Amino acid sequence: VTASLGAVERLARQLEFVVEADRLKHVLRRTSLFDGSRKENDVEHSWSLALMALVLAEHSPVPLDLHRVIGMVLIHDLPEIDAGDTFLYAQERGQETAAETAGANRIFSLLPDDLAAELLGLWHEFEERKTPEARFAAALDRLEPLLQNLHNGGVVWRENGIGKERVLAANAHIADGSAFLWEQIKAWIDQAQSQGLFAPD
Amino acid sequence: VTASLGAVERLARQLEFVVEADRLKHVLRRTSLFDGSRKENDVEHSWSLALMALVLAEHSPVPLDLHRVIGMVLIHDLPEIDAGDTFLYAQERGQETAAETAGANRIFSLLPDDLAAELLGLWHEFEERKTPEARFAAALDRLEPLLQNLHNGGVVWRENGIGKERVLAANAHIADGSAFLWEQIKAWIDQAQSQGLFAPD
Repeated sequence: VTASLGAVERLARQLEFVVEADRLKHVLRRTSLFDGSRKENDVEHSWSLALMALVLAEHSPVPLDLHRVIGMVLIHDLPEIDAGDTFLYAQERGQETAAETAGANRIFSLLPDDLAAELLGLWHEFEERKTPEARFAAALDRLEPLLQNLHNGGVVWRENGIGKERVLAANAHIADGSAFLWEQIKAWIDQAQSQGLFAPD
Repeated sequence: VTASLGAVERLARQLEFVVEADRLKHVLRRTSLFDGSRKENDVEHSWSLALMALVLAEHSPVPLDLHRVIGMVLIHDLPEIDAGDTFLYAQERGQETAAETAGANRIFSLLPDDLAAELLGLWHEFEERKTPEARFAAALDRLEPLLQNLHNGGVVWRENGIGKERVLAANAHIADGSAFLWEQIKAWIDQAQSQGLFAPD
């Protein structure tokens, strides 16, 4: 139906989406800013991933459609407006997907049909991690909180009883986006362990 | 010199940039979130512009390299880490450019030379508003606070004694990015005036 919308009606729906998306600025994450001063929200996290995509793309083993990587990281958390942020190490993580899918369907459907299908497609691509772009985007999504925790003395890990082996297991798919980045990170994790940043395994 | 850096050294400089860029999350703007609950920061603003670019590009009169538009809006405020946010309607706005240029040079220079040149080039392109991509990015940069102020009952305008004619003058270059968007906005501004959202001119 919306394929036949005029420009004015399309703009109204596009802006309705923009206003609704603004609520993502209220979804707080467990992880703190790099300076440790406060928790960051999902929008700040998404911007950091986009910035990282701009400057780290060379570490992908294959050339990337960087525009698609950035599109994915910009929108990947929007369903959390409905579903809330899920801590990576939460036991119930597997159960959150239905709420996230429902949230994605609701939020992207605010847009005209063609744009809704495009962004929902990007979101599913990110979630499925089958394309090089999605794998790299997913690697960035893990890299940012890892770096923040390493910078902040591992407070989130020790507060939540997360040991080194759980961190390695939960983040291992970074290697699917960039084996080089994962090798570097493993070295930093070893250093962090010797500094006592992790809870016991 | 940095052209000869190895991947490990390049990564170190890239991450130094990412950590420094994180400080943009502390630069507060005058304008509030769409729900009016608090001021937004420069990173939240930048993410909103990128999201708007993803869904509003069709309103450009010419096809755009959207990847470059999004790159510009993601990084356009980074120099404000050094220079601070400048209120659009501040008298001294013209004097801030030197501080912003110095900030841009310092912050982008954290990156390996090739990436520093690329992002500094994007930043200058945005500031100069000569390409269709820069004009559209600049239009989004005006559109977001306008929409927020219209949503929030014009509090920022009345608090700062900003009348309708100043709003029209300060935002008129939206038309250079999209005449269609500017026509819509002028209609909303007329409505807002009849609702008393502006200070007297």
